[in-house]
Amino acid sequence: MESGALAPNVRPDSLTELVNGALLATGSTRDQARAVARALVGASLRGVDSHGVRLLPHYLRVLAGGRVTRDPQLRITRTGASATTVNADNGFGHFASYRAVSEGCLIARETGVSGVSVINSSHFAAAGCYALEAAEQGLVAFAFSNSDSFVLLHDGLSPFHGTNPIAFAAPVAGQRPYLLDMATSILPWNRIRDYEAKRLPVPEDVAVDDLGHMTTNPAAVAALLPVGGTAFGFKGAALAGMVEVLSAALTGMAHCSKLLPMAGEDISTHRRLGHFFLIIDPVAFVPRAVFDAGLAAYLADLRDCASKAGTAALAPGDREWACHDKRNIEGVPLSSALRAEFLGIATELGLNATPFEG
Amino acid sequence: MESGALAPNVRPDSLTELVNGALLATGSTRDQARAVARALVGASLRGVDSHGVRLLPHYLRVLAGGRVTRDPQLRITRTGASATTVNADNGFGHFASYRAVSEGCLIARETGVSGVSVINSSHFAAAGCYALEAAEQGLVAFAFSNSDSFVLLHDGLSPFHGTNPIAFAAPVAGQRPYLLDMATSILPWNRIRDYEAKRLPVPEDVAVDDLGHMTTNPAAVAALLPVGGTAFGFKGAALAGMVEVLSAALTGMAHCSKLLPMAGEDISTHRRLGHFFLIIDPVAFVPRAVFDAGLAAYLADLRDCASKAGTAALAPGDREWACHDKRNIEGVPLSSALRAEFLGIATELGLNATPFEG
Repeated sequence: MESGALAPNVRPDSLTELVNGALLATGSTRDQARAVARALVGASLRGVDSHGVRLLPHYLRVLAGGRVTRDPQLRITRTGASATTVNADNGFGHFASYRAVSEGCLIARETGVSGVSVINSSHFAAAGCYALEAAEQGLVAFAFSNSDSFVLLHDGLSPFHGTNPIAFAAPVAGQRPYLLDMATSILPWNRIRDYEAKRLPVPEDVAVDDLGHMTTNPAAVAALLPVGGTAFGFKGAALAGMVEVLSAALTGMAHCSKLLPMAGEDISTHRRLGHFFLIIDPVAFVPRAVFDAGLAAYLADLRDCASKAGTAALAPGDREWACHDKRNIEGVPLSSALRAEFLGIATELGLNATPFEG
Repeated sequence: MESGALAPNVRPDSLTELVNGALLATGSTRDQARAVARALVGASLRGVDSHGVRLLPHYLRVLAGGRVTRDPQLRITRTGASATTVNADNGFGHFASYRAVSEGCLIARETGVSGVSVINSSHFAAAGCYALEAAEQGLVAFAFSNSDSFVLLHDGLSPFHGTNPIAFAAPVAGQRPYLLDMATSILPWNRIRDYEAKRLPVPEDVAVDDLGHMTTNPAAVAALLPVGGTAFGFKGAALAGMVEVLSAALTGMAHCSKLLPMAGEDISTHRRLGHFFLIIDPVAFVPRAVFDAGLAAYLADLRDCASKAGTAALAPGDREWACHDKRNIEGVPLSSALRAEFLGIATELGLNATPFEG
C-alpha cells in the first residue's frame, strides 16, 4: 500500500552520496566532487532548488564531455597583500570558489579586507554557498559571478546580461548567518521552468517572448526582466552590470554575451568563467562584541516590524534556514522526473539506487 | 522683456560660490565647505537634484544648530593593512567621505583592496560622489550608507529601512566612469516631493499611506516600497539590509530605525551616522590593458543592444554624464522656490546674490 503513496523525500546524506559517487565515477577527483556535493546539497537543503541537486545530470554531462576538467590543479597567485587570484584550471566553479573563499578569509584575518578573483572557472551554482562559507568562519563576504545572456536591459528587446547573482553573508552571534543570495533578474531562470512544470502562468512584468513582448506563458519566455520590472528595471540592470565589472573586467574573463551558453550543445570547450569575492573581517573595524550586538539589535528590530496579515518580517536567510532545518529532518523533495533521473544515474554508475526507488 | 521669461539656469560656478560662501559664513572651515560644495554641485550637474544644491538650506540649519560640527577634526586610524576608520567628528558626511576614499585609494594601491569605515558622521548626500572619486583615480569602488526609516520591508506595513543607497563606480579608459548610484527603495524619497510639486500622481506599486495602503497620491505617501515592489520587494529589502550590516553593524553606529531623523526638529544632537567604502585596484588582479579592454568591450556590446522605440541601451552613468555636460554649459535649472531661497540666503549672508535674482 505504501508504494502507491507520494514518493518520499530523500535524505541529504543520500543526495551527498549520489552526487559524490556519480562525479567520482565520471572521473572527478575526490576533493572536487566533495565541493560540488556540498554546494548542491546545501542549496537543496536551503530550498534553492534551482541551484541544488537538479544540476547533477548537467554536471555529469559536461564533466564527461570535457568542458569541465576532471582533475583541476588550482593555481593560487597572491598578487597583493590583500589580493589573490585562483586559477580554476577549468574545473568545477564550486571547487575553486570554496578554495577562493578560504584563501580570502586567511588574508582578511591578516589585513582586514581581501579580494579574490577566480579565473578559468565553470558554473558557479548558488552564490550564497561561498558567502556563507566566510560567514561561518566569522567574516562578512560578497560573492559575484556573471553568466550567459538571459536578461533584458532596461527597455531592452533581447537578452544581454546573465542572471548575474549577488550574494552577501554576515555572521550573527548565536544564530544562522545573515544570507542574501539573489539573481539580479526579477526571477531566476529556472523558476520559469517551475511555472511551466506546474502549468501556471508566470507573474506579470517578469518575462518577454522572443519578440520582446511581455508574456505570462512560461513556454514562450525568451528573456527575463531585470529587478525593478518595466518601470524600474534600470536598477536591476545596473546591479547586473556591477557583477560584470567585477567578474569579467576584473578577472580578464568574458562578459555575459560573449560566454559559451551553459545549456549549449558544445560540452567540450571550457567556458572560462570569472567570479569575484570580497571578504571583510569585522574585527578590523569594530570589536567583535560591538559588531555582534549591533547586528543582533538590527535583526531584532527588523523581525519585530508589523507585516501584512499572513506574512512575517523576515531577514534574508530566515526562510532558507527554516527550510534547511525542515529538510535536514524530513529530507529533500524531488520531482518524479528528477527522482527517475537519479535512479537511472545510480543504476548506470553502480551506486546505491535504493533512495531513489519506489 | 527678458525679465518676464523663465528664470535662467544658474552657472555651476555660481552655485559652488554660494554653497561655499554660505557654509563659511555659518562657521564651517574652508576644507569642509569645499567638500560639501563639490558633492552638491556635482550631484546637481549630473541631474541628481534630490541630492544636489537643494540640500544647502538644510545643511545651513543643522550647521547653525550644532548637529554638524563647524570645525571637525578628522581622526584616521589604520586598523589593519587594508582597513582604516575615519572618525568624522560629527562634521559633514561629504568631508569625511571624500577623505575616506582618498585614504582607501592609497591603501588599495598598496595592498590591492581596502575597506574604510566612517563613524560619527552626518548626512551622506549622493553616494555616487565618493565611488566616483575613486574611479577618477583609476580604482573600482563601492559606497554604502544607511539612513533613517522611509522604506517598508517586503510585506511590511510601516517604514523600517532608510533609502540606503548603494554606489559603485569603475574607471573606463577614455570615457567617463561607470557609475551606479541607486536607492534600495523603488524611488528616492525626494522624487515623491517632485511629483507633489508637479501635481502628478506617483506611479503604481511605489508607495503606501500611513495605514500601509498603496497610494498614488504624493501628499499621502508615508513610506516607499523596496526595489522589486509588491511582488519582489524582498530583493530591495535584502540589499537595504546589506547596507545596514556594512554601515551600522560594521561601524558600531546605529541602524535605520534608531537614527535621529534627518528632517527631525532636533538640530543640535549629532546623528552619528556610519558609512562604508570598499576600494579595489584593478591592477592587483589584471593588467590595466586587460581591464580596460574588457570593460570597453562589455560597454560597447551593452550600448549596441536593441531597445524599445524611443529608448537607447544605456550604461549606468550615461544619462548622468550627458546631463552633466549639458548643465555644465547651460547651467543648472532651479525651481522658483529654491531660487528664491538661495536669493534670501545670499542676501542675508552678504554673498553675491546676482545669479539668483530676476
